[in-house]
Amino acid sequence: MLKYPQSILNLIDSFAELPGVGRKTAERYAFYVLDNMNQVDVEEFINNLEQVKNKVKHCKICGNLAEDELCPICQDITRDESTILVVENVRDVLSIEKIDSYNGLYHVLGGSISFSKGISAKDIFIDGLLERLKNENIKEIILATNATLEGETTARYIKELLNEYPNIKVSRIAYGLPVGGDLLYADQMTLLKALEGRIDYK
Amino acid sequence: MLKYPQSILNLIDSFAELPGVGRKTAERYAFYVLDNMNQVDVEEFINNLEQVKNKVKHCKICGNLAEDELCPICQDITRDESTILVVENVRDVLSIEKIDSYNGLYHVLGGSISFSKGISAKDIFIDGLLERLKNENIKEIILATNATLEGETTARYIKELLNEYPNIKVSRIAYGLPVGGDLLYADQMTLLKALEGRIDYK
Repeated sequence: MLKYPQSILNLIDSFAELPGVGRKTAERYAFYVLDNMNQVDVEEFINNLEQVKNKVKHCKICGNLAEDELCPICQDITRDESTILVVENVRDVLSIEKIDSYNGLYHVLGGSISFSKGISAKDIFIDGLLERLKNENIKEIILATNATLEGETTARYIKELLNEYPNIKVSRIAYGLPVGGDLLYADQMTLLKALEGRIDYK
Repeated sequence: MLKYPQSILNLIDSFAELPGVGRKTAERYAFYVLDNMNQVDVEEFINNLEQVKNKVKHCKICGNLAEDELCPICQDITRDESTILVVENVRDVLSIEKIDSYNGLYHVLGGSISFSKGISAKDIFIDGLLERLKNENIKEIILATNATLEGETTARYIKELLNEYPNIKVSRIAYGLPVGGDLLYADQMTLLKALEGRIDYK
């Protein structure tokens, strides 16, 4: 039976790797590239794929996305350097920045402790956080991991570690988030309320 | 306000160009590339994009996809060369091939006549079809353009042209209920066509 030319099948395979993309959708994307994108569009697409892998790094201090050694927030001298807000993922930073009411620093763990997935405290950027406590003059740490089992476990774990630093106030963003919810999909008002209502984490 | 690094924004833009992909989905794809694809995966993706634009051509005879001068079907000497099935798009060829019961040749118009989109008969591969009638020994032409206004207009237009060739049988694929279809959910036009196209029940 006839199949598409191999080069189209290959491109369909590539698109089908993307999350939530089945064969039909991948086919649709591949034919869009073939039929509707000109040479310049495709070169730009290719260039953008290359750039993302070559240029984007993680900030040496906080783990946020960066095109330099440090991310724009760690480079920004107007930010309040006495507060660190701890999140699981880089995309969470943008979610918090969007509500435009937090002016401290961040720490991006790059995941959460998960027994079921075999992710332990060593696999995420917790040691980087402890390092900062030695070097920086931190007054408050806001734990803003997700309101999931893993996020809560991670927050609890970090809280235990921070008992060594009695002068640092540790807070947890409030359960304005729906339990089981992901920071990424929260609306701005919910995020704002959660931030304002943060409570001492004991 | 903080934004993602420019290289990520660029890749999000590229993905957002694909049909049916909004910002959120494009973001998801871009972060998948960043977080879950390694250098080899991305190079393969890039290579596949390049290849599709460089390698895939249209068959000189029938307009189907080809990596050589001729498509696999026009190269296949076992196909019945006296019948041409006319479709709008290359993907339609695969749809027909999948049912595994047509053994003739194809002709891919690469679109349909559309007054609203300003696509005229000259813009699609009709002249290529007429050329084949002079050179090949064609006995039947099956018009399998879509069951849309444009597809019907195109089929009708080609039928008129073929009046010059009284020895060629011209047929149109049947309209009707889809197999497994419920009368209750069929639209009126489909029902009308199904009724008009009724056949002796033996």
